[in-house]
Formats: sequence, C-alpha cells, structure tokens
Amino acid sequence: MNTYRALEVTGSHDFRLVARELREPAPHEVRVRVEYCGVCHTDVLAVEGLRADPSRPVVPGHEIVGVIDAVGPGVRAWHVGERVGVGFLAGHCGECDPCRRGDFVNCTDQEQTGTTVDGGYAEYVHARTSGLVRVPEGIAPAEAAPLLCAGLTTFTGLQQAGASPGSLVAVQGIGGLGHLALQYARSLGHRVAAIARGAEKEELALGLGAHHYIDSSAQDPAAALQALGGAAAVLATASSGASMSPLVAGLAPRGRLVVLGAAPDPLEVRTTELIFGSRSLLGHLTGTPIQNEDNLAFSVANGIRPRIETVPLADAPKGYARMLAGQARFRVVIDAAA
Amino acid sequence: MNTYRALEVTGSHDFRLVARELREPAPHEVRVRVEYCGVCHTDVLAVEGLRADPSRPVVPGHEIVGVIDAVGPGVRAWHVGERVGVGFLAGHCGECDPCRRGDFVNCTDQEQTGTTVDGGYAEYVHARTSGLVRVPEGIAPAEAAPLLCAGLTTFTGLQQAGASPGSLVAVQGIGGLGHLALQYARSLGHRVAAIARGAEKEELALGLGAHHYIDSSAQDPAAALQALGGAAAVLATASSGASMSPLVAGLAPRGRLVVLGAAPDPLEVRTTELIFGSRSLLGHLTGTPIQNEDNLAFSVANGIRPRIETVPLADAPKGYARMLAGQARFRVVIDAAA
Amino acid sequence: MNTYRALEVTGSHDFRLVARELREPAPHEVRVRVEYCGVCHTDVLAVEGLRADPSRPVVPGHEIVGVIDAVGPGVRAWHVGERVGVGFLAGHCGECDPCRRGDFVNCTDQEQTGTTVDGGYAEYVHARTSGLVRVPEGIAPAEAAPLLCAGLTTFTGLQQAGASPGSLVAVQGIGGLGHLALQYARSLGHRVAAIARGAEKEELALGLGAHHYIDSSAQDPAAALQALGGAAAVLATASSGASMSPLVAGLAPRGRLVVLGAAPDPLEVRTTELIFGSRSLLGHLTGTPIQNEDNLAFSVANGIRPRIETVPLADAPKGYARMLAGQARFRVVIDAAA
Amino acid sequence: MNTYRALEVTGSHDFRLVARELREPAPHEVRVRVEYCGVCHTDVLAVEGLRADPSRPVVPGHEIVGVIDAVGPGVRAWHVGERVGVGFLAGHCGECDPCRRGDFVNCTDQEQTGTTVDGGYAEYVHARTSGLVRVPEGIAPAEAAPLLCAGLTTFTGLQQAGASPGSLVAVQGIGGLGHLALQYARSLGHRVAAIARGAEKEELALGLGAHHYIDSSAQDPAAALQALGGAAAVLATASSGASMSPLVAGLAPRGRLVVLGAAPDPLEVRTTELIFGSRSLLGHLTGTPIQNEDNLAFSVANGIRPRIETVPLADAPKGYARMLAGQARFRVVIDAAA
Repeated sequence: MNTYRALEVTGSHDFRLVARELREPAPHEVRVRVEYCGVCHTDVLAVEGLRADPSRPVVPGHEIVGVIDAVGPGVRAWHVGERVGVGFLAGHCGECDPCRRGDFVNCTDQEQTGTTVDGGYAEYVHARTSGLVRVPEGIAPAEAAPLLCAGLTTFTGLQQAGASPGSLVAVQGIGGLGHLALQYARSLGHRVAAIARGAEKEELALGLGAHHYIDSSAQDPAAALQALGGAAAVLATASSGASMSPLVAGLAPRGRLVVLGAAPDPLEVRTTELIFGSRSLLGHLTGTPIQNEDNLAFSVANGIRPRIETVPLADAPKGYARMLAGQARFRVVIDAAA
Repeated sequence: MNTYRALEVTGSHDFRLVARELREPAPHEVRVRVEYCGVCHTDVLAVEGLRADPSRPVVPGHEIVGVIDAVGPGVRAWHVGERVGVGFLAGHCGECDPCRRGDFVNCTDQEQTGTTVDGGYAEYVHARTSGLVRVPEGIAPAEAAPLLCAGLTTFTGLQQAGASPGSLVAVQGIGGLGHLALQYARSLGHRVAAIARGAEKEELALGLGAHHYIDSSAQDPAAALQALGGAAAVLATASSGASMSPLVAGLAPRGRLVVLGAAPDPLEVRTTELIFGSRSLLGHLTGTPIQNEDNLAFSVANGIRPRIETVPLADAPKGYARMLAGQARFRVVIDAAA
Repeated sequence: MNTYRALEVTGSHDFRLVARELREPAPHEVRVRVEYCGVCHTDVLAVEGLRADPSRPVVPGHEIVGVIDAVGPGVRAWHVGERVGVGFLAGHCGECDPCRRGDFVNCTDQEQTGTTVDGGYAEYVHARTSGLVRVPEGIAPAEAAPLLCAGLTTFTGLQQAGASPGSLVAVQGIGGLGHLALQYARSLGHRVAAIARGAEKEELALGLGAHHYIDSSAQDPAAALQALGGAAAVLATASSGASMSPLVAGLAPRGRLVVLGAAPDPLEVRTTELIFGSRSLLGHLTGTPIQNEDNLAFSVANGIRPRIETVPLADAPKGYARMLAGQARFRVVIDAAA
Repeated sequence: MNTYRALEVTGSHDFRLVARELREPAPHEVRVRVEYCGVCHTDVLAVEGLRADPSRPVVPGHEIVGVIDAVGPGVRAWHVGERVGVGFLAGHCGECDPCRRGDFVNCTDQEQTGTTVDGGYAEYVHARTSGLVRVPEGIAPAEAAPLLCAGLTTFTGLQQAGASPGSLVAVQGIGGLGHLALQYARSLGHRVAAIARGAEKEELALGLGAHHYIDSSAQDPAAALQALGGAAAVLATASSGASMSPLVAGLAPRGRLVVLGAAPDPLEVRTTELIFGSRSLLGHLTGTPIQNEDNLAFSVANGIRPRIETVPLADAPKGYARMLAGQARFRVVIDAAA
C-alpha cells in the first residue's frame, strides 16, 4: 500500500476523506498503523476551526491505539510490532522551563495530537517517541483508546485532588470522562458520589461504582454532598461554569474542586466559600505518556473499562456529531480498519 | 481594681466604653491584662453587626498582646506573669471531625476572639488556653500584636502556597496584610513583586523588601507578572473579587493564587486559565496558636516588623474608622494602658 | 453485675484472672462492655514487663471492640449503646507541642491502651473519648478488632509511603500486619508483591491480593523487586533489622521503606543506597482515632477482612503464647463474652 | 588557538597536564571556555579510579563556570558569549522511566561531568545543552563555581527536608557543603544549629549564620538538639556513617535526616528511633540544571557566598590534595585562565 485513508478537516467542520502518501518516519518518530481512535470533546479544537491555523488541513483524533509499523532514525526504545497509544500530548520540547522542571504537560512548545499535528482519524499516524505510550496485554485495543485521554485526565485529576483513602469523592457528569472517573474513584478506595441530571441515571451510576447518586435536577447537589459529610474532592467534568461553581459549597474543609471541563462561561465563586473551610479550585489538563502507562496498568489490574460505540472510519463524522450532541453511550471509538 | 474598662459594641457600629467586673478565670482559661490590641479589618464582623447575635454586646479585637494575670482551674502549662498573645482563633472544640484530624482552623465549633467571645478592645480579656500564643523576647509588644492575625494569615498563606525558594511571589495590596506579606516573602528567600495602585507606593514597596513594583493603575498586572516569568504564587489581600480575578493570568504553570481577602463580589475565572497551566485558587483563613509561635520566632529571627500607629483605648473607635477608610499606615494598634 | 472479670499482668508474664469492681466513668470517659479484643505483638510491652512501672498490674489489649455502657460527665458526642473501638492511642493530652500541631500520634503525654492504662483483656474497659473510634455496620465486631491496630498501622503506613496508583508496593511478612497490608495495598490499586520465607506461602499471598510472590529463602528479595521494576514502597513488618535492611536495594528511585516492625537489632544501610536513587526510610507507628474510622469505612467498602482465631477470655494467655510463637493464623481475637 | 590545556587522570591518582585539539561541538552540545572549576570531594570517583573504566583518561571537575565559545548543530536556546555553568549532572537521556517522570537526577543513562565525560580541570569543556545552567549577573564567576555542586546539593537537600519556616534545622559538618548549608538554612528563615568538632569553630559557624553551635567533641549532639526542641531536619554532610547515625535521636517528631555525604561505613539506626516519633532518613544526591538556576538566583538575592581558595590550573593536583586532606578553607577553585 502506498497511500492511506485519512479524514482531514479544513476550516470549520468540513470533513474530507482523502488518500495520503505513506511516508517514512522522521528522526525520533515512529509510524503507527491505527487500530482504533476515540472521539473526544477536545476534537472541537480541530473540527470547529479553533486551532492556530484553521486553513491548514489537519486530521483530528488523540485517543489512538495501534501497532508500530516503521521506526525513524535514532529510535532505540520502540520497535516494529509493538502496540502503542498516542494521547493528546504528542511530544514535549525538552528545552523550555516547564520541561526542564519535568512538567511536560505544561511544555510551552508542545505538539498536540490532532490539533498541531495529524491525529488518529486515519489508517496511519506518525508520532514522536516522546509522546508514545506502551499498551499492555489484558485490555482490548478498542477499549484502551478512550483511556488515553478521557481516562488519563480523570485518573491524574484524582491524583491531583489528593483525597485520602476512604474519603468522599464526587464526580459531576456521567459522560465520556465521568463514566470513567466513577470507576477510577471506586477502584482507588473512595466513597463515591455521582452527580447528574435525572433520576433515570441512578442505576447506571451505581453500576459504574458510585455509592451515592445525586440528581441535580431534584436537589441542591452541594447540600446533598454536605449531608454525606462534605466531599474531599469533586471532579467537575461538565463543560459549564454555571453548573460547576455551586459545587464548591459541597466540599469538606480542605476540599478541592478539580476543574476538568473547559467551559464557555466563567467559574463564579464567593471568596468566603474558599476562605472559610480552606477550599480550593484546581485546574487540570492531562497527564504524561508514562502516567498513561500507569493508568493502563491500573485499569487492567482493576478492570476499568469504558463503554463504547464503534464506527468505521468513513462514519467518523457521524460519530463526532453524536458525541457533540451528547448522544454517545459513552464514548465513540473509530475502527480504522473497518 | 475590681472593674476594668472595655469598649463594647451592640448592634451595628455603636461603641460604648463600659466598666466591667473583673471575674476569675473559668476552668482551662486564663485572664490576660491587655497591653496592646491591633485593629483588623475582620473587626467589621463585630462592629458592623455581622456576627451571629448582634443584639448581644461584644468587645472586638483579636490581635491581643498582654500578660497573664490569673489562671483558672486545670491550667498547667501557662503561668501568671507570662506574656501571651491571642489571635482570631480563640479555641477549638477538640471533638468535631476537623479537630480530630488536627485541622483546628476549621473547627466547626470554634470560638473567635472579638466575635463569639470578648476580645481585646479592653484592659482585660479572658482566654482559653487552647487559643494562647507564647510571645518571645526580642519584639516590642505593640509590634507583636498585628503579627498575630495580619502576620499569621500571610505567613501561613505563604506556606500554603508552597512556592519553592527563589521563585517569584507576588503580593497584591500594601495594606495591613500586604506590608507584612512583602517582608515575609522576602525573608523566605523569594523574588518578590508588589502590586498596588499608584506610582507613589513604589518606594515603600521596595523598602519593605519587594524586588519589583507593579503599578496596576498604569499596567496590566498579569502581563507584568508574565514578563517577570510568571508568579509561582500570588497572595491576594485586596477585598475585591474584581481586582483578584485577573491575577490568575499572571501565574506561572502550577502557580497558585492564595485568596486571603474576603470580598463582597465574587471571583470570576475562566476555566481555561485554570486548566491550561494547571493553575489553582486556594482559600486561606488563618493559622493555629502554635503556628503563631512559629510566626513570632521567624519574625524575631528575620526582623519582620509591622508599621503601626498607636491610639489610646478610648480612641479605638477613631482608629477603627481610620482602618476602615484605608488611612492607617499600616496598622492601628490600641494601647490598652493609655 | 457489680464486678467484672479482667486478665491482669504484673511484673513479667504473670497473667491473673481477677474480679474488679465496676466503677462509673470519670469526666470525658466512657465505659465500654468489651465484645472482642485482638492480641497484638505490642502486647509484649505489658506482658513482658517492658512498660514504665511493671510492678503496677495492668490489663493488656488494644484492639478492642465493644458497646458503650455508661458515659461520664461532660461527654456530649458519644452515647450508650453505640459500638466503638479503642486502639493503641488511648488519648492525647492536647497541650504538648505535637498535639498543638495536630500530630496526636506523637503526643508526648499520651495514654496507651493496655500499657499505661488498662486495656481489653477484660469484660469492661474505661476509655477516654479522645481515643474512641466509631465502628460502622457492615463488619463483624470480631473482625473489626484487629483492624484497629494491625490494620490501622498498615493502612496509614501505606498513606505515609505515598506510592502512586498502579505502582509496585511490596509487603514484607505475611503475619498479623502483613496479611492485612496485602489486602489494603491491593484495594488501593497497587501492583502488590508479597515477600516471605517458604514456597508454601505463595498461594496464601496470592489469595490475599498479591500479584507477585517472592520467596526470600530461595531468591534475593531486592533483586526480585528490581526485576519487577523496583518498588515504590516496601512495608517492612518483620521484627528484624537484618531482614529489613537489604530491602532498601529493592526500591525504585524515590522509593520508600516504611519501617513498621520494632526490631531488637538495628537497621544497617549503606549511604550510597540512599543517595543514589533518592531513597528513604520512614518510621511509622500508628494512626489517630479518626484515621481508624477512615480505615474501617475503607475496609467495609473494599471487603478487607482479617483472618482470625477466637479464644475465650480465660484462654487469652494461650492465645498470647500462640501469637508470640508465630503460630496464629493470622490474628488471635479474645471473645470477652465467652 | 588550536589546542588547549587539560588535566587528565588515568587509572588512579595520576594527573597529567596535556594539550588537546580544540574540536567543534557535536549536535546539541556547546563548547565552553572554562573560567573557574571547583574541586569537590566527588572528584575522587575520577581521580581515585572508582569510575566505570579507569583505564580511559578523563578530565575531572564538575563545578564549572565559563563562557560559551561555540554552539553545535540544533542548539537554539544557548548562545556564544553567554556565561554558563555545568554541574555534576552532565545530561539526561530523556527516554528512561525516571526521565519520562521528570526525575532527571535519577536518569539511568545519565552522563556525569568529570566522570563519564570530561570535566572542568581544563581550559575548555564540551557540554550537552541539557546539562547547562544560566549564570546570572551579581555573583563573581569564581564564587559561583562551588554553588553548582556543593551549593546545589545542600540547597535542594533543604527543600527535600521540607522543614517549615522558623523550625530548627541542623547542619552537621562545616566543610565545603556545610559552610554553604548554614548560609542557605539561615536565608530560608530557619533557626540554625551547626554541629562540628572543636570549640574553635564556633565563631566561624555563627559568622556563617548559625544561631547555635554544638561542639560534638564536648557534648552529645543529639541531646543538644533535643535541648533546643529537636531538629525538624538535619543535613548530614560528614562522610561517616558512625557520626551521622546518632543524629537521628536529635530529631523532633516527624523530623528528617537528609543524608548527603557518601560514607565508607553504613548507617546504623534502631527501628524504635524511627517508629516512635515518625522519623525518617532521606538520601539526597543533587538537583537539576534548572534547580541550579533557582539556586543561583536565590544565592544572589540572599548574598550566599562560598569561601574559596584559588589555584592556577597547573596546581589543581595540589588543590585536590588539600581538599582530600580536609585543609581547604572551604572550597578550592581552579582558575583555568591562570
């Protein structure tokens, strides 16, 4: 095969299935034959033209699982035939101040998969070795894909929260991120509360590991959390400042609200809610490739599994539309070989 | 002497100088002959009638330095003649969950000096031993007083911030708290930036230890902080959400905005400012009595000294008015013996 | 009933079953009708006469579960009929420097159950409220008892270790502490390695949650840990410096050896083993009553259960002897009502 | 100039002054014209033939200050004419697990200046950009040199210790490391105790910033520390396990002994000393290049200055001998231009 299929987008919302020439990997790069790629809400950066140069075509997708197909010059630690993953962080520069401090997530010159470089809505992807993740046995490749971004974000967000074992952790939202966050929180030994709208989601939440369900359309979620003793941490996955802000009042003393969902409207918090009770708000983006390996090892050991819908590559635009409309149950995954 | 003078307030803003009977201390209580008491912005809780039961008279004041005059039954570790301090935290219950976790600042059944129990606008005060602070030699009692709340809040706030030595720490506001925060931050080995309004405060700020001065009436303080590399921590002492919120954009990656000043208007922060850069907002109230002893030891060792104006007890209402109007340079201290 | 049975020891190793007068609880004290009491290795402090004044008789036992039978003056938060536990820390003074810092475990004037005050080898025990632990539904009282010391020590020791989720944690020894540590480590989401002597313990270790078993009589445990990638933490429960010290070499970079077992012989560690790899040794004693409540909540939620042998009160000396001889499988528990 | 002078050592202790060809820097490398190079005790690794292949000649020295003279291909962030430093960590691989976790100090494939690659006992050195340190104005180059290893080790060791401001920190030894550690500890706001042998060092210790001096030939240093309230941290710089081990008993509850000095004899510590008091031992090696920049910024801001003896390049063997004999006051620095 000398060409491969890829779904490009140019400008805003204009998907095109194109044939691309298969090129050899550059130095410190590998070529990956994509097996599966998850559809993440952050794909809007590419698809809706919110990236730096929307006139340049880009292939979206940053929850990629595949097999190394060729390695470029200088690659020592990665081999043809290995199953690997690629998440949002496509590679760090190594030279900026955050990189020199080991804080690669905040690299000021980073590449981002499916945004600044081509991603996984395609049969092949080229990836820098500094962005690669080893994918272990014991998890189906299609199910590993959503763990690489939705999973990593919530797994590392929970670590950022630093709640002690046995303490109450709440997860707001039961979508792509939330349905994984419930499983992680449970597997880390927390008492887990799920917060969502509608009585019909209770059974689902409990099935995913929640001990408590709070229907925010029927009760004040902050009061409900305080009735349970107050949350040591809340993971806020909803993309809405208006729905995240009131949760600060549900935190226990020293509690932390971890903000995961980028929202169009701001957070609005009273200073006294933070000061009395020593509460805090933490922004959290994602983790590093080796934290993704921790994440996959943890997920295999504890049976964490996303619930997915699979679509063939050509139908990725439909899958993307389902995700955007909030209809996905709970993660759309593209089958690149179908 | 069988009576002593005290300045009570009832309802809102109604100071009365009264004579009270001198009573013996209750169990686990000491009686302190007040030498000095600082005037803090939090005194508004008492004076403006914002406390639980404004109809009950209370004596404001929670930056008290004095000498133990009598000890109650069961007091073993404190002695007549010792110089002691009393800050905002008048005593913790020992039985609530935060107390059992050692987090006395968040005691759910705490007494607060000058708000739930009588404070230091008086010749004598009765204090629980769990709220007492040993005052060392090496600092004038009048100068120790403001360290007990304005000082403690900023000293422990800087610890909460956890910025590493040599990193950039900014202090917003050069009032009662800010003029101490600059000294602490400098003595802890930080690069220090002061943020205030007006070119005329630059000399003052540099004199208090700042390396950099940012005039927020002439330049965007967040941009100015980024030009210095971004702040690892900002201590926000201004009582204004509108002036604190924009400082988030001046934080370095992993930077923390420590919210010290209770404000009437909310903080308003974009989620992306928190998420990209892993930034956070921390509420911070105060510290414990033993942290106040650390604070005083640190202040003596490093020459931290508040700049004060002294007024006799009878003129405390005038001093309070100066504080409220922002005219104090920089802390009003009541001389209870004058 | 006006008297109750208690097993006193005087001097060294001299158990006597005596009848004691049932007295009313003192202020801030409750009287507990003992249901069960675990037999812990630390009971040697009392039984072998290693305590401060061996000539004064004492009742050993600090893994007590029972029901409150009477409350003393000033007790507000505890009620007759509640099921409670009492662990090693019988109460803290509240006035020493560690207490004022909230570090009750290091109280310099603490009472220790079964050592400085009478413990649970008896039908009744008097306990200070500051040492009480609420025992939840969902765990059998006999099984809760060993969690109060053996469990608490390993549960909080794992928190002290601070290993990240998914990382390798090793437990040395599969006795009273170790067989619980394996379960906690597994429930906290770690990869778990058990280290013990003899091939026959492998099945047991894997049944308790270990992913890997290292037979230290057949292989060098440090090398075996390094073959697994190096341990982020090792919990050393064996009472032998000679067997703990070599495990430092099995730690990953930044790894921590948590020393739980008091040993007659010292630890001996080369400085280069600590320096290269930034490794550390942490001493850990126990936790606080509220950490014990966290521990019980965590244990109920995750199905942590000790494996126990029950003996009637009169046979406690035999149970103690089995424990001392290393014959208990894995914790002897006294049934005070039998 | 087409050749430059360098002091090689081959095998054990065999210094030779040779002329080397000046070569162009390799990719991601710069060539530095050496101004000064400190003589560190770790130079024994090279000089005494303790490195991997003693038959291959190597140039010792890893406290290098100089000016960039040429840059290799691919170098973007460093420029000819910049003053830079090179410490012990000559460059990390970026690919091993510690590197992927941002823990460059524990890189498993690291280069070490003056040991695995040529160091600074020479007129020129070639250095990887990942090992470079920016040297600020405000400190003399000769005085900056010892800060790059002796300084960095103690500066980051104090951060590892995590003692709170105002707490007691002890420094054992007043040699190359210790005389800097005293200055750092003082500038970080600690109460500082110096421990050394002999009454005559007291004045020196106090002059360097110590508040207390403990003559370990006249009194038990652990008891002396406990008389001061117990040390929150002890920095042990003496290369002797026998002299470090007893200091554990001088720690306050939760105190930490930071082991900096590699010793021929082991540490020997009783388990009960660690367990009761929750004490710990931490191994600490060094810091990263950006931590060295923090260190230099901190040193400039706080007036930290090593006390040095300067020798010309040709006399470096004599300087090394003085260091080894413990005669240096307190750091020998080679002047490469003399």
